[in-house]
Amino acid sequence: MPAKVAINGYGTIGKRVADAVELQDDMDVMGVAKMKPNYEARRALERGYALYATTKDALPKFEKAGMKVAGTLDDLLKEADLVVDCTPEESGFKPTYEKAGVKAIWQGGEEHALTNFSFNAAVNYREAIGQSYVRVPSCNTTGLIRTLYPLDVHFGTAKVLAVMVRRATDPLDSKKGPINAIEPELEMPSHHGPDVQSVLPTLNIHTIAVKVPTTIMHLHAVSVELKKATTAKDVLDVWRHVPRIRFFRGAEGVASTAQIMEVARDLSRSRADLYEIAVWEDGVHVVGNTLYYFQAVHQESDVVPENVDAIRAMCELETDAKRSMERTDRSLGIVP
Amino acid sequence: MPAKVAINGYGTIGKRVADAVELQDDMDVMGVAKMKPNYEARRALERGYALYATTKDALPKFEKAGMKVAGTLDDLLKEADLVVDCTPEESGFKPTYEKAGVKAIWQGGEEHALTNFSFNAAVNYREAIGQSYVRVPSCNTTGLIRTLYPLDVHFGTAKVLAVMVRRATDPLDSKKGPINAIEPELEMPSHHGPDVQSVLPTLNIHTIAVKVPTTIMHLHAVSVELKKATTAKDVLDVWRHVPRIRFFRGAEGVASTAQIMEVARDLSRSRADLYEIAVWEDGVHVVGNTLYYFQAVHQESDVVPENVDAIRAMCELETDAKRSMERTDRSLGIVP
Amino acid sequence: MPAKVAINGYGTIGKRVADAVELQDDMDVMGVAKMKPNYEARRALERGYALYATTKDALPKFEKAGMKVAGTLDDLLKEADLVVDCTPEESGFKPTYEKAGVKAIWQGGEEHALTNFSFNAAVNYREAIGQSYVRVPSCNTTGLIRTLYPLDVHFGTAKVLAVMVRRATDPLDSKKGPINAIEPELEMPSHHGPDVQSVLPTLNIHTIAVKVPTTIMHLHAVSVELKKATTAKDVLDVWRHVPRIRFFRGAEGVASTAQIMEVARDLSRSRADLYEIAVWEDGVHVVGNTLYYFQAVHQESDVVPENVDAIRAMCELETDAKRSMERTDRSLGIVP
Amino acid sequence: MPAKVAINGYGTIGKRVADAVELQDDMDVMGVAKMKPNYEARRALERGYALYATTKDALPKFEKAGMKVAGTLDDLLKEADLVVDCTPEESGFKPTYEKAGVKAIWQGGEEHALTNFSFNAAVNYREAIGQSYVRVPSCNTTGLIRTLYPLDVHFGTAKVLAVMVRRATDPLDSKKGPINAIEPELEMPSHHGPDVQSVLPTLNIHTIAVKVPTTIMHLHAVSVELKKATTAKDVLDVWRHVPRIRFFRGAEGVASTAQIMEVARDLSRSRADLYEIAVWEDGVHVVGNTLYYFQAVHQESDVVPENVDAIRAMCELETDAKRSMERTDRSLGIVP
Repeated sequence: MPAKVAINGYGTIGKRVADAVELQDDMDVMGVAKMKPNYEARRALERGYALYATTKDALPKFEKAGMKVAGTLDDLLKEADLVVDCTPEESGFKPTYEKAGVKAIWQGGEEHALTNFSFNAAVNYREAIGQSYVRVPSCNTTGLIRTLYPLDVHFGTAKVLAVMVRRATDPLDSKKGPINAIEPELEMPSHHGPDVQSVLPTLNIHTIAVKVPTTIMHLHAVSVELKKATTAKDVLDVWRHVPRIRFFRGAEGVASTAQIMEVARDLSRSRADLYEIAVWEDGVHVVGNTLYYFQAVHQESDVVPENVDAIRAMCELETDAKRSMERTDRSLGIVP
Repeated sequence: MPAKVAINGYGTIGKRVADAVELQDDMDVMGVAKMKPNYEARRALERGYALYATTKDALPKFEKAGMKVAGTLDDLLKEADLVVDCTPEESGFKPTYEKAGVKAIWQGGEEHALTNFSFNAAVNYREAIGQSYVRVPSCNTTGLIRTLYPLDVHFGTAKVLAVMVRRATDPLDSKKGPINAIEPELEMPSHHGPDVQSVLPTLNIHTIAVKVPTTIMHLHAVSVELKKATTAKDVLDVWRHVPRIRFFRGAEGVASTAQIMEVARDLSRSRADLYEIAVWEDGVHVVGNTLYYFQAVHQESDVVPENVDAIRAMCELETDAKRSMERTDRSLGIVP
Repeated sequence: MPAKVAINGYGTIGKRVADAVELQDDMDVMGVAKMKPNYEARRALERGYALYATTKDALPKFEKAGMKVAGTLDDLLKEADLVVDCTPEESGFKPTYEKAGVKAIWQGGEEHALTNFSFNAAVNYREAIGQSYVRVPSCNTTGLIRTLYPLDVHFGTAKVLAVMVRRATDPLDSKKGPINAIEPELEMPSHHGPDVQSVLPTLNIHTIAVKVPTTIMHLHAVSVELKKATTAKDVLDVWRHVPRIRFFRGAEGVASTAQIMEVARDLSRSRADLYEIAVWEDGVHVVGNTLYYFQAVHQESDVVPENVDAIRAMCELETDAKRSMERTDRSLGIVP
Repeated sequence: MPAKVAINGYGTIGKRVADAVELQDDMDVMGVAKMKPNYEARRALERGYALYATTKDALPKFEKAGMKVAGTLDDLLKEADLVVDCTPEESGFKPTYEKAGVKAIWQGGEEHALTNFSFNAAVNYREAIGQSYVRVPSCNTTGLIRTLYPLDVHFGTAKVLAVMVRRATDPLDSKKGPINAIEPELEMPSHHGPDVQSVLPTLNIHTIAVKVPTTIMHLHAVSVELKKATTAKDVLDVWRHVPRIRFFRGAEGVASTAQIMEVARDLSRSRADLYEIAVWEDGVHVVGNTLYYFQAVHQESDVVPENVDAIRAMCELETDAKRSMERTDRSLGIVP
């Protein structure tokens, strides 16, 4: 029987996870909960999702906006085995989920301590099996894990420095800036380093974050001291055997995140998403024992397949990480 | 028998027209021609299109890049009834097409004088039937025609002033700016006014254009002196009965072009395109005889359905404009 | 004896007004009041201004930050004849000023009703003489008045439509966006039309506002139906005899607001300000009775000279508008 | 007798160097040469510089534009002891200067090999004394040298990694982008590393460059393995005793390059320039032997004082580096 999944929060991540879950044959979306009857709520209805108001107080707003709701979040949780929480960080729904007796997944805006288990399909799928509460780290952290974990396994890593040039906000947002400035995260390490370690506890990583005026992708400049000498070619070969990394060539005109997202759009996936981490083949360099590379992260979607795998593990629908990832990837159009 | 269509130029417009043609059951893409073996050429191959080099000189470049081409543009034209020219403006292929004996469609970058026939499906489909050379006006011009023509028909228009706040470049481009400036088109009227008149010769329109640092949509602030008194509601009613206009509500959080394109992405169409002109319902105001409204134009895709209809008229696949538009729109997921 | 001026609020406008007042020989800055001990407060001290905390509560914060304050706003007002309120809109200090018995000037963020007198030096200096409470309209409104008033006087205006392409936020701000969107003001007219009429009550003006991702200037596309036939040359001649308008030529490479602000920087004025309204000579066109022109407004500084003139009128330091404006302009480096 | 200085190229750097030279009492600007009679040429005239056309061919253009020129570059060079070349890179004027028998300074766009001497006042002033041909490295390189050289002297540096988040173009430019993308320099190291070594040959530095959509400053995230253990406080103390570094505090609201440039504007220097390298005090961290810090570089002006010092050394106006730097800095308003 398919797992019954509730989606709490139907914004950038929530709507993507909902659609991805719908694409699986072993799980169903029971409904989505929303605070406000805005244009995204309307799209949820048009898409055929049962729409729930997060709270009772919100019900009249939905009625006034002419949007039919099936009840409140509490009603939705009654029908669900698991809820994917895609609400803004620190929304504080854990007691609600506990009371309803549902398993729950949170996103990277939450602290690791909320669940004491942070998930990445390639790293710790097996430990996630049967878990009640799981956190999927943020887009940036997931992006770092995707490329660093296989490096650590194959070559060993002595020290990692990742400078993350972050998009300031998502494409759907027109309130946040900056319009013309670069903003460093003055505290160090940025939270991403410890966050990577919530999944890869022994990785020696320092992260530096800088915010820039763009909406489409994060870009990481990563420097890795490897324990074993190697070449750019060998590094690329390792990555080629790992899921959810996609390769691009500056020499073919993919000069920036603009062209990467253009390729993503040309893939004709829903919302023009790029679930894979983008690596420039001709941006990988090995100097002595140090590997330098650039990668770009589509902040809106790279965690979506991880959410699907997490559901599968937690609901014990599949015991093998690789098989789960393959099912997820095939459904989303991620072709190796 | 389906019309055989060649696509010359596989960039922003070319790839969209190719895919739209492929979706029709009365026309086929015979191949696409490209100057350079860049990432878009690679995607064309991956998508299954026969790839042709524009010129003989370019053949070795494709070979070197490991991209298999089926020949040159001349070879492609031999197999085609009609070519859609999506090359940069003033590329000068008309003699080539004449020599090859194929019908041809050009985009709005070209002058009206090249074909002496500028096309809009709602306005002059019938006159396009059987034509050899047709021009589809630019995204902005097409956008203005979509909303102004029905106004002219239903209310009569005495005078139109359209101020066009233009996106500076397309999302795939990372070379052009400005990054932090507003650039007025100092010549007046901007070329758009006369261009609208190439389709609607009697419309009294003045256009003003300003370029701003955004990539996703043009925005038009339009002011129309109507010949008949009316209300915002009646104007909206007229537009609701016209294809290829889509309505948005500021009150539901669609505050800017950002949220419009987010809805477009949520529609899960290929490349997240919005073929329809976007009109804010709560931005339509009538003061005395003057109608004011805002519309937004997805510059990459609004002309795509017009290209498909133009092919259908020119190749005499359908004599009725409305039926052609319905077929095109259904295939592209444009639901009225 | 020089007028004693207090500055309440030392941000974008406040610090400019303070410096402009300091440049006059008939007025003195008694001190500036600030809510928070941020970098601007530090600059005020470094510049030699007496710094006051807006409230008693804020005193410890300044102490903690190591910034020496001379007291609170109440203390400052005791030493002042007039306060220029440069606080965020609706800060509600009027009762405070009334209680302290000081004259007061507010900026355009406030409603006209707060003072029932909105000021523009060229239009109503004489009526401002001796007034207690005066409002200087916003940068955009002031910009429109500067060019429209002389047109109205010389040619008569039947109808004005101003489409205002607004910078989204000021250069010092890195929080506000949008980064990649255009946002229309869906309500019409935008508040600027009625605001212009608070100074020019009989002007028939409709305004439309659109926000775009830039920080440096607003750009206005203005369309004016004149009562008298004229030419672009004559319009320019009228403006040339009016203060606080500066002319630029697209033909000399001034293609956008970027180059206008570059010229402003090349003038070596403090903060690279451009107090004048920028008009493109080669962007002025007359078609029939309709005049079209573009102007750009440096939103941080164009109201600064108006504030100085308003002080002079209110404190009865000068009865002649023209003489006041000349003194102000000379002090600020505005050469006719 | 003051050194007679010609300025070839009057753009972003040229006009700043001209004004800085004018401020010195031991050197004079004999004139500035320009290719085109654009708005910058007009400003040069308004500022009182003798204007020269770069070539004879350009003379009629200046005449047509109504700009009075004093002759050609050749004429200007006859009157000069030294020319500061601020033309676009690889303009190729060296033979012209050799023929005219003038000393010459080039900017960082040129290769080190052109002069075989790259200059930084703090590092190698003494070696520059009497030189005929000197190159002042680019803004980014100069910025790195300013902070790294004292670190190397005081603590010793084992290894430096600098990730440079570069502004895409200057504020005066409205043509270049990107508008919404991040563009990595895929080749490694970026040219900046070797360029730093042209002045500091033994420094072990790797540089990575990324271009982002902003115009106002470059931001560097620098990681330095020091040879001696130290603290953030001690690092700051070293920098405090070095000229041309200015400190900012995130805690006081200086969160990004926007606020840094706002402070620069508040300094009321010409063109709102910031000649100093900006370092965030609260962004300096030492972890083990590794120092991390952020610095921001005002790309338009940080090399200006270096140019002045280079002139002084080359023309043997002053033998002591420290004294030259003090004179330069005092004239430009750089207060320690």
